[in-house]
Amino acid sequence: MPDMKLTTRAEDFSEWYNQLVLRAELADYAPVRGCMIVRPYGWALWENITAALDKRFKATGHVNAAFPLLIPRSFIDKEKSHVAGFSPELAVVTHGGGEKLEEPLVIRPTSETIIGHAYAKWIQSYRDLPILINQWNSVVRWELRTRLFLRTLEFFWQEGHTAHATAEEAEAETRQMLDIYTDFAVREAAVPVIPGRKSAAERFAGADQTYSIEAMMGDCKALQAGTSHNLGQNFAKAFEIRYLDKGGVLQHCWTTSWGMSTRFVGAIIMVHGDDQGLILPPRLAPFQLVIVPIYKTDDERAAVMENAQRLRRELVDAGIRVKMDEREGMSPGFKFNDWEMRGVPLRLELGPKDVAKASVVLARRDRPGKEGKSFVPQQGIAAAVAQMLEEIQKALYDRALEFRRANTAEPADYEEFKKAVEKGFAFSWWCGGTECEEKIKEETKATMRCIPLEQPGGSGKCIYCGQPAAEKAIFAKAY
Amino acid sequence: MPDMKLTTRAEDFSEWYNQLVLRAELADYAPVRGCMIVRPYGWALWENITAALDKRFKATGHVNAAFPLLIPRSFIDKEKSHVAGFSPELAVVTHGGGEKLEEPLVIRPTSETIIGHAYAKWIQSYRDLPILINQWNSVVRWELRTRLFLRTLEFFWQEGHTAHATAEEAEAETRQMLDIYTDFAVREAAVPVIPGRKSAAERFAGADQTYSIEAMMGDCKALQAGTSHNLGQNFAKAFEIRYLDKGGVLQHCWTTSWGMSTRFVGAIIMVHGDDQGLILPPRLAPFQLVIVPIYKTDDERAAVMENAQRLRRELVDAGIRVKMDEREGMSPGFKFNDWEMRGVPLRLELGPKDVAKASVVLARRDRPGKEGKSFVPQQGIAAAVAQMLEEIQKALYDRALEFRRANTAEPADYEEFKKAVEKGFAFSWWCGGTECEEKIKEETKATMRCIPLEQPGGSGKCIYCGQPAAEKAIFAKAY
Repeated sequence: MPDMKLTTRAEDFSEWYNQLVLRAELADYAPVRGCMIVRPYGWALWENITAALDKRFKATGHVNAAFPLLIPRSFIDKEKSHVAGFSPELAVVTHGGGEKLEEPLVIRPTSETIIGHAYAKWIQSYRDLPILINQWNSVVRWELRTRLFLRTLEFFWQEGHTAHATAEEAEAETRQMLDIYTDFAVREAAVPVIPGRKSAAERFAGADQTYSIEAMMGDCKALQAGTSHNLGQNFAKAFEIRYLDKGGVLQHCWTTSWGMSTRFVGAIIMVHGDDQGLILPPRLAPFQLVIVPIYKTDDERAAVMENAQRLRRELVDAGIRVKMDEREGMSPGFKFNDWEMRGVPLRLELGPKDVAKASVVLARRDRPGKEGKSFVPQQGIAAAVAQMLEEIQKALYDRALEFRRANTAEPADYEEFKKAVEKGFAFSWWCGGTECEEKIKEETKATMRCIPLEQPGGSGKCIYCGQPAAEKAIFAKAY
Repeated sequence: MPDMKLTTRAEDFSEWYNQLVLRAELADYAPVRGCMIVRPYGWALWENITAALDKRFKATGHVNAAFPLLIPRSFIDKEKSHVAGFSPELAVVTHGGGEKLEEPLVIRPTSETIIGHAYAKWIQSYRDLPILINQWNSVVRWELRTRLFLRTLEFFWQEGHTAHATAEEAEAETRQMLDIYTDFAVREAAVPVIPGRKSAAERFAGADQTYSIEAMMGDCKALQAGTSHNLGQNFAKAFEIRYLDKGGVLQHCWTTSWGMSTRFVGAIIMVHGDDQGLILPPRLAPFQLVIVPIYKTDDERAAVMENAQRLRRELVDAGIRVKMDEREGMSPGFKFNDWEMRGVPLRLELGPKDVAKASVVLARRDRPGKEGKSFVPQQGIAAAVAQMLEEIQKALYDRALEFRRANTAEPADYEEFKKAVEKGFAFSWWCGGTECEEKIKEETKATMRCIPLEQPGGSGKCIYCGQPAAEKAIFAKAY
């Protein structure tokens, strides 16, 4: 029912989100609690995300593969922190083919263990390194509180798993992938992100170091939008992933893993969306432009449709993703609302008068009302549309960055800090102590999101304990 | 160890297959019985298969989506034949998040039930029809006897699920998808297939009609390489998938489903492979051409590599998928064997003499030895390679078709029939009776593969019972 108004973000951000996801037909609830159906429109968006990431992975020498869904329960137990982190979240298969299994199997919550097992078999010498494999799949984690895209029992993602000969190479890989996530978020999704290092408390279960990109949502909360882990030799030791070095000495490998998931769809929604619905960045939008033909009589219809089809072909030939809304029995106004809900970046309106004047109306989704409308001649339409899509892409990024800046404080003391994390991000000196981190979380519900790679330099005093601090960190309430 | 010879096909076809899959690094065994790891080279082949199919699906108006992995156990029970067919093969999740589940969940063996549930919710009126959705995923069926790619507990595939307003539309869709599978097999994989109708006994559990494409493998056995099912109103009734027609009357929908899986990789191996290993059809090969530079001294190396890189760039710019084998410490002969095992259609050899003469040696994988080698000038290399790849693609198809023809008999009586199915396919009149089909299976181990869409016309006598028969069918032993 796209003609019903959404709850506004100001009224109830969370309710706005849930309604939008359903009404834009991005996803739906599945019969199993906490699972989701990603509907065709949502999946088309995800396909564009995967294509943009996959291109970057392959350009940096990675290849795709597929490891099994089912993992022996005992594998999870092999790495100490890993088992502690994932045991409570496992889905367990106890029966197969009508019989009870000798050893229970788990549905992968992530694949470090089963891939570690394979790498141990495949890697013999330094010549076999590095191994740079990614896989696109879904994983299952038994979450209690779920939200479509943001946290679901089953979610879709990519998980990269690499093995290297040295600690330096593993660290370089970990950082390279963080850079790729950053580049993707900024350039493709128009989502400004802060790349940084996680605290020990927030690390992946089994990692020596976790990096993440953090984004500010429309309600000023943080969302972790991608992570890259340096696993050190932890999994290599647990799974005996070893290689003969050039000197003939057996060494443990250094491994990494990194992932980005359908959660990122939630980020796009909450960064760009407005009270009319979704706003999609042109580079990822399934449809970059929707044509809404406007007519009353059959004669008008014939003339408008003929012209509309011609324009469609011209735009498609120029590589623009176009949807033609030919639905009968729906008013143009209804269609406008419908495509606004779905966040199509540009709308092309074409009525009999436009046909007569050989022009069209282009309406920008990111600027509602008259301000976003312009009359554009049909001559050279493809170039005009391409340019406008680029402008929208840039405008979305600029707006999101400005919003984050406006809602990020650098509080002078802890009192200011407490107010700051009520409203948005606090960027503060932190001593690095787990105790301060825990106290802050306890007292304010804000967590240490990351220590940004980009630091102001110098040093200061920890916002909580006042002891000397060498780095500044982002604190915020988070999804 | 690509320098070790494969068991030949004549010695032991099944062992040849297993060795080839492992040595070409297409797949590996997983720690869980019957599961497989699809290795990067095998997955790159699968990615090319998926791209070729996905393009065809989208060109015919289908969209992709993602339905959940986990299905309530009770869903499977809703369609009578479906439950009978799939119950024995289910993997059952009984515990999640450390607790016993109230209702056990099954890992999807196929998604008719969960998609039927969603369609019932999404479809209200004739305006919502048709729904044409496909998904790429993996499913789990608890098979007892497994073989890499051919039959695994978890396998990768696409499953299309459509809903229509009329029986005619559903049948047209079912046939359209069979045509798409046929076109894909013939044009992309160079695999000749026989599209036809299955018998009642061989139908999908819950279908009114199943169509399949059947291919002859290198050991003359049949392999079902893709199926398309007309589900009638069976699932629509079980899941209450209904729509209001134009007259305002509530009607049940007509649904279809269709799938092609990683099994097709097995078909490619067994149709084209030879005693040296895999032979990949150029249109699907991850690498269409491998460059093997040949040199002894450092000077030679410099000259050869400079020339090789130039050729590589030229070929890549022309859209050819090129692998440069720069591995050190391996002889050219070793590399030749290695890439023959992996089935790369063309090998480009380049030594100091070739550099001097501004030519290269091209060696066709499908014609071993001198016969397949030619000296080609470097001038115009991309066009020469493109043409040769087309020739190889055609030659592979022609050879496979000729092989099938040579091993397909039209036996005059049941005695001849029994001999024919020992050696290959028998194309025989069949009365259509399940009893004859069962007797034949019992006595010869051959099954009714399909009733080809292309029929000679006229009528004859059933090869088993001698009663009048209106159609001819393919009988063969099958994978």
